[in-house]
Amino acid sequence: MEDILRAAKKVAIQAALQAGQEAKNRFENINSILEKDDFGDVVTEVDHLAEEIILTHIAKSFPDHCVDSEEIGHNGRQSDWMWIVDPLDGTNNYAIGLPLFATSITLMHQGNPVLAVIYEPMVDRLFVSAADKGAFCNNIRVQTKPCPSIQRGTIGWIQGHKVQNEARAVKLRHHLDVRFKRMMRVWAPTLQWCMLAKGDLDGIVLYNSEGTDLYSGILMVQEAGGLVMDYEGKPFRGMSPEPYLIACHPAHKEHFLKTVAEGMG
Amino acid sequence: MEDILRAAKKVAIQAALQAGQEAKNRFENINSILEKDDFGDVVTEVDHLAEEIILTHIAKSFPDHCVDSEEIGHNGRQSDWMWIVDPLDGTNNYAIGLPLFATSITLMHQGNPVLAVIYEPMVDRLFVSAADKGAFCNNIRVQTKPCPSIQRGTIGWIQGHKVQNEARAVKLRHHLDVRFKRMMRVWAPTLQWCMLAKGDLDGIVLYNSEGTDLYSGILMVQEAGGLVMDYEGKPFRGMSPEPYLIACHPAHKEHFLKTVAEGMG
Repeated sequence: MEDILRAAKKVAIQAALQAGQEAKNRFENINSILEKDDFGDVVTEVDHLAEEIILTHIAKSFPDHCVDSEEIGHNGRQSDWMWIVDPLDGTNNYAIGLPLFATSITLMHQGNPVLAVIYEPMVDRLFVSAADKGAFCNNIRVQTKPCPSIQRGTIGWIQGHKVQNEARAVKLRHHLDVRFKRMMRVWAPTLQWCMLAKGDLDGIVLYNSEGTDLYSGILMVQEAGGLVMDYEGKPFRGMSPEPYLIACHPAHKEHFLKTVAEGMG
Repeated sequence: MEDILRAAKKVAIQAALQAGQEAKNRFENINSILEKDDFGDVVTEVDHLAEEIILTHIAKSFPDHCVDSEEIGHNGRQSDWMWIVDPLDGTNNYAIGLPLFATSITLMHQGNPVLAVIYEPMVDRLFVSAADKGAFCNNIRVQTKPCPSIQRGTIGWIQGHKVQNEARAVKLRHHLDVRFKRMMRVWAPTLQWCMLAKGDLDGIVLYNSEGTDLYSGILMVQEAGGLVMDYEGKPFRGMSPEPYLIACHPAHKEHFLKTVAEGMG
């Protein structure tokens, strides 16, 4: 297992760097932007190109592994090992020239994330985390930080497009919006998880948003000393098709549970 | 007057490029971040450095002009010409490692913006506009664009920190939040004005937010063919200490007036 993880880390880093670099090179020069679904989500030629790069790297080294990728979907294999790939998290930003996007690769073992690699090409930040081995940004260890005054903190809100205007989601979102200094909604979830892991964000509230951009961020924050729990405070492990999550520094656990409960009440 | 404008344009471009480059070079390596006011706004050493660069350029070429700059304030001179300088719009982003910030320089003549230069160093985009001469991004003319389906458009919300949780502001903000696909709040107003001018954003609603970051953006959008009006639809000209503004492509005028009126009702 250690051998596989060591090799997987190398492959994931190479793949993320190469795919991210290609995305960066094409930034502001994309030719085709298509609407992907009825929720206004878009996909570009760069999503497909980055995906191809990453899947080629994985298939070459781990042909038997299961792969689930954002655009292509599931490769149909059965394996204890599953790669989850979001070749371009933040496509909507990419398409309108906002430099907020990342490449995300997660390796799951028996349903638990064991390796996460996220690369932000525009600022050249490579985040790497392995289970029980900490989280790193450009080879420097990162940690979540407590906020001196959490009411004046900045939180990230992540929500599934399909539930965008669901009454409960709107109520909670608007409640949180006035309970913190700033609510960030950057439409690139992996970036927010990395900001929390690095101590640049004070918390994340996620409302029913599962996808290929989720598990790398969760592992990154957990390995950076952060809590990831459901709205009742139960630690989050494994996978869930409809996650409702809070992530923060352990010092702010009660504050977040209380504030989210108010907003759901 | 034409001579002054020509010279001013050169000076403003040089100053914005140099200040922006210094900010980029120091990104992620800032030593001091201070809270500037009770609203959680911050200031960094880079704000001061960038300001010094820009003011030096202006003072050298136009020693008699009036200057109003974000950190230093008003230089006390009386003149028909006033330079308005925001050396680092988006300081809060800068301080947490988000690559969303810009340098903004506006030249006013008798209270009207006649020249605007905005530079986004992280993506190397230089926006330049002069009254009646159009708006340009990296020397290519830009124009606001109509959105095929405005309800599924993306709007920018800009609000003064001092009125953040004022009841009317919250009501309007939350109304707009569910009336468009995406409400962007990037905490760097000049970037949003530039996105609108370039056709990458579908509208801006601004709630009582005046400052050194305002007038360059307004001129940029007007010169890109966009409307800038108050909540009653009256075109905006000159300056206002408490502006309430809508900016959009002319095709969406009625939709924005109606939607904002609902949110204010």
